[in-house]
Amino acid sequence: MRIIELNETSKKNILENLLKRSPNQYEAYANIVDQIIKDVRNNGDKALFSYTKEFDKADINEANIKVTEEEIKKAYQQVDNKLLEILRKAKKSIEEYHTKQKQNSWFDASKEGIILGQKVTPIEKVGVYVPGGKAAYLSTVLMDVIPAKVAGVDRIVMVTPPDTKGEVYAGTLVAASEAGVTEIYKVGGAQAIAALAFGTKSIPKVDKIVGPGNIYVALAKKAVYGHVSIDSIAGPSEILILADETANPRYVAADLLSQAEHDELASSILVTTSRKLAEEVSTEINKFLESLSRRDIIKKSLDNYGYLLLAKNMDEAIEVTNEIASEHLEIMTKDPFMDMTRIKNAGAIFIGEYSSEPLGDYMAGPNHTLPTNGTAKFFSPLSVDDFIKKSSIISYTKEALEKVHKDIEAFALSEGLSAHANSIAVRFDENYSN
Amino acid sequence: MRIIELNETSKKNILENLLKRSPNQYEAYANIVDQIIKDVRNNGDKALFSYTKEFDKADINEANIKVTEEEIKKAYQQVDNKLLEILRKAKKSIEEYHTKQKQNSWFDASKEGIILGQKVTPIEKVGVYVPGGKAAYLSTVLMDVIPAKVAGVDRIVMVTPPDTKGEVYAGTLVAASEAGVTEIYKVGGAQAIAALAFGTKSIPKVDKIVGPGNIYVALAKKAVYGHVSIDSIAGPSEILILADETANPRYVAADLLSQAEHDELASSILVTTSRKLAEEVSTEINKFLESLSRRDIIKKSLDNYGYLLLAKNMDEAIEVTNEIASEHLEIMTKDPFMDMTRIKNAGAIFIGEYSSEPLGDYMAGPNHTLPTNGTAKFFSPLSVDDFIKKSSIISYTKEALEKVHKDIEAFALSEGLSAHANSIAVRFDENYSN
Repeated sequence: MRIIELNETSKKNILENLLKRSPNQYEAYANIVDQIIKDVRNNGDKALFSYTKEFDKADINEANIKVTEEEIKKAYQQVDNKLLEILRKAKKSIEEYHTKQKQNSWFDASKEGIILGQKVTPIEKVGVYVPGGKAAYLSTVLMDVIPAKVAGVDRIVMVTPPDTKGEVYAGTLVAASEAGVTEIYKVGGAQAIAALAFGTKSIPKVDKIVGPGNIYVALAKKAVYGHVSIDSIAGPSEILILADETANPRYVAADLLSQAEHDELASSILVTTSRKLAEEVSTEINKFLESLSRRDIIKKSLDNYGYLLLAKNMDEAIEVTNEIASEHLEIMTKDPFMDMTRIKNAGAIFIGEYSSEPLGDYMAGPNHTLPTNGTAKFFSPLSVDDFIKKSSIISYTKEALEKVHKDIEAFALSEGLSAHANSIAVRFDENYSN
Repeated sequence: MRIIELNETSKKNILENLLKRSPNQYEAYANIVDQIIKDVRNNGDKALFSYTKEFDKADINEANIKVTEEEIKKAYQQVDNKLLEILRKAKKSIEEYHTKQKQNSWFDASKEGIILGQKVTPIEKVGVYVPGGKAAYLSTVLMDVIPAKVAGVDRIVMVTPPDTKGEVYAGTLVAASEAGVTEIYKVGGAQAIAALAFGTKSIPKVDKIVGPGNIYVALAKKAVYGHVSIDSIAGPSEILILADETANPRYVAADLLSQAEHDELASSILVTTSRKLAEEVSTEINKFLESLSRRDIIKKSLDNYGYLLLAKNMDEAIEVTNEIASEHLEIMTKDPFMDMTRIKNAGAIFIGEYSSEPLGDYMAGPNHTLPTNGTAKFFSPLSVDDFIKKSSIISYTKEALEKVHKDIEAFALSEGLSAHANSIAVRFDENYSN
């Protein structure tokens, strides 16, 4: 893996290179996606079934689009019991963590005659997209569904593309069932997102759509944003490890590799103050590499988006860490908790040498749906907050309003809004007429 | 104003008619907006200045784009002292309310050797769009800036279009200064949004863009979403009043009118169980109308998007209220607090007959930037939460990881990810090699 010294030029080049991975770079596909959305919006199920035939090579119709109880039962028979047990452990810790995120409604009644507050209400209907294909997404199902359940979402509608036999991967069905989802439809891609956003005869319209997908799914989510809400536009995965000379190069190497195996666009970066560590990590990576099943993907990912970056000191190391704003950040330094206090931008922060990133993927409890590609500067991990919305509460008595009514009227008139002033004034002057 | 009895058909027609007001209906302008964004992205200031010349008829360049301290001083001389006093009162209550929204970082250390948590960090750089033109937006400035300040945003960059003389409305500058904004640029429209999203020589790139604007601004915000975050896509304003026979028809009429004066696309709706109330409200509206300065706008708004809706009973009234999901909801019923508990979807809820909507626009404290056009089903009022983001915190000791390491490895292998399994295993087996 290449070792690069940080300076203004190398930093700029690296940041630009990393952004090439963004779904924002694929706007060329936007036209196709817009066409699919329009078609589903206008022609409903007909368009949906026809795209499923075209893209997934599956015959789906009104009668078989919804996963049946029998199919779920059958799926359970196909899933290893040991795995089911682990899935249930994972579910438990994900539930525990997310329950702590629950916000209460609150009110403030500290002023006589005035109640102000914030009412928290779950979103009523949520769509969860689960990718299909050969890969398994058991953990994704848990991570997307459990926060919605904890928030109190009434109706969770899952969509996932079928295989050519019109079947859904057994693991997905079992994970969905364990998470409490009962409504699953065999449809994927941009057409599934369009169906969730606008509704068809078979698929109910939802209020928000969450879940990862390919570039068509990502662009479709962006296109329907505003009609419905979405979680975020997911990009390829990434890790940044911030380490000093105290870090174990073998652990660093193994963790960089684990991220690189996701896909060729994944990015694995070490930022360190120690050249010795960088060199040892490079050696360890080569030692591991040949024995890993996904080494071809890993090699491409490391060649294109992998870096061992040398910083002059910890200040510079932390600065570039904040600029990259990585989805996953591991801190393996002398004093990792104190260094964490200087981190402004990261999706999830793994502290200390035993907090390896895959711990967060499956088992620890915090959500693994995280902001990618620098968006940790402004986006957050998927959370219970994504499945609620707030309403402000305002209540004044006559006496309380009377104290401010002249101010409000004057403010309204200053903005040229006489009907606003009127609506306050009529409450204090029986004969008021602006 | 028309009185309509609620039934499935009338409800469907009304909901469809209201959606015609959505910015989502104006996708025809999207191409122009995309072109402007591309141009600013590629040509920076040059494009920015040229669009400002074209659309705002103002000569803006590197030397005069930034508002100077002298200009702010001059603005103070033009603003009425009484108004300034009211502005400061409003600022105080807005600050008080939003301070209550502040979320703490938290951690859970209840299990030996495990720390899980959620770190809250302010977004670093935020852009605030303030519309220009003849209307004044003093309250908008306060509502957009104060939550960002409370959240701890480091750098707030305001943009607002200049008049033909290259000047910015004095009220906007004074409100900005009172709210603590020191960096204001004279640029508006889609070109301003593009500049904030990608940066130009004169305008810094920000992480998030908030604030209302015309259709070009709304579409530009949607287009740059993903590159940066945005607050929401604002549509025209609306009010729904839920009232029974106990409501004062004069107050109901005045409040419906106050919303209708915003613009021709504004919507004012009464949902009531009392035909008598609906008829009296209609009469009162006609009485007020002729004396209001913006009656032409009001008439068009009421004709196109105003309704007095008759529900058979409170259940039906509340159901349609939740389906419309209004930006502003006033409840004027016998027991308005209890009826509030049944409201699922609304931006701000005004309870009781003295909680007139303009109270919330200026003075009460809760934010007046609210989800419009049915988006209260999934969006929330602008809040301190819009200006922070969260990072998950995960830290395990060796002993804690050891208890789950076999489960994580098995789960990873079940998803076909051997490098994930490897990264955990190497920590427990010196010679591990997958």
